[in-house]
Amino acid sequence: MVLLSGGMDSAVTLAIARNEGFACHALTIDYGQRHRFELQAATRIARALGAIEHKRIALDLRAFGGSALTAPMDVPKDREIPAIDARSPADDAGGDIPITYVPARNTIFLSLALAWAETLAARDLFIGVNAIDYSGYPDCRPQFIAAFERLADLATRMGVEGRAVRVHAPLLHMTKADIVRKGAALGVDFGLTHTCYDPDPSTGRACGRCDACRLREAGFREAGTFDPARC
Amino acid sequence: MVLLSGGMDSAVTLAIARNEGFACHALTIDYGQRHRFELQAATRIARALGAIEHKRIALDLRAFGGSALTAPMDVPKDREIPAIDARSPADDAGGDIPITYVPARNTIFLSLALAWAETLAARDLFIGVNAIDYSGYPDCRPQFIAAFERLADLATRMGVEGRAVRVHAPLLHMTKADIVRKGAALGVDFGLTHTCYDPDPSTGRACGRCDACRLREAGFREAGTFDPARC
Repeated sequence: MVLLSGGMDSAVTLAIARNEGFACHALTIDYGQRHRFELQAATRIARALGAIEHKRIALDLRAFGGSALTAPMDVPKDREIPAIDARSPADDAGGDIPITYVPARNTIFLSLALAWAETLAARDLFIGVNAIDYSGYPDCRPQFIAAFERLADLATRMGVEGRAVRVHAPLLHMTKADIVRKGAALGVDFGLTHTCYDPDPSTGRACGRCDACRLREAGFREAGTFDPARC
Repeated sequence: MVLLSGGMDSAVTLAIARNEGFACHALTIDYGQRHRFELQAATRIARALGAIEHKRIALDLRAFGGSALTAPMDVPKDREIPAIDARSPADDAGGDIPITYVPARNTIFLSLALAWAETLAARDLFIGVNAIDYSGYPDCRPQFIAAFERLADLATRMGVEGRAVRVHAPLLHMTKADIVRKGAALGVDFGLTHTCYDPDPSTGRACGRCDACRLREAGFREAGTFDPARC
């Protein structure tokens, strides 16, 4: 079970899961995000990377708001993204969580992945969170992933019956450049992915200035390669 | 933040939260359950018990299925509900989880409650789970609730900033009769609540034979009182 947003991290995660021999079911959540380009990208990626099934489920988090991605607020541009101490990212959240943080988003997404997984008797969940080159969201940290794994075993029939749930977060300790290199090695076409929080509404062209764009751009630069989505 | 299904347990939970002085926001999830009577009941209860706000959010779990409540399967009738050892309900799940179990439902519901709570700066979540007179669902046990509370602190901005999330499950160790008595003492009108998994589709009348009906009936009987919803 692979959570697939349409961005580059979840695309590389899907490629890793496939490369490890998993038959992948991809789940995309239409949570009322600011634009549809990401959802369209998810469909392309699921097909290109050989997911055996792709579901999109609607859950409109705009009902709650509380984030620049789900409420009428401006997405921050040209922000100085605080450096994360790569050796100890675990302790580094809290100081500067930006307004693009969507309350409880990864908890909700993993819960939905867990629900579908259980109906399929699948015990391996994959999520493309990253705790190095990231925006400082609390639900992208290793201790969050570990806590969800413990919860999943208590929450489900399969956990109770001794078939332990495993939450794989293969990008957790990678830099964005590592992710670019890994994806390239696995044949991910990054031209299919969509990263920007605030693209041009008619063309879908990335803004180049939001956190997501800046992290992506730095990753490609550091990996010494070009981003096919920006050519 | 109170999860409100429209059944008697969550109604009593809302009454308890109000009685403890909380300003209550009630959240109902329209998850594609078999009928609408429960959702209508939730609206009545939120109003009658003085919730200051009531939201209903749609999330169609029929996309996943895997349960008699979300897929075209028959709801079990006249089932022998295995006795739970009231002193140690924690160890008792796993042996006989019925097909009305909805995969990961309470994990999903608490995640959604957490999301709305965080946008309101609310740290107290209430859920009406019960580990005594219950159907043996894994996500109704005390260790599940404790694990979610730990997760919530790691998952959210408020948790990271030291404002700990608390998951209240005031009915956890009550018998169904205790719940009836507690609700009566707090003035809950049980006639507003809907419990049955499989009501008459035109009248909404309870079947009297599913697990939910049988547990409810036994609770009222043991409390020595009448169920106004069945008169």
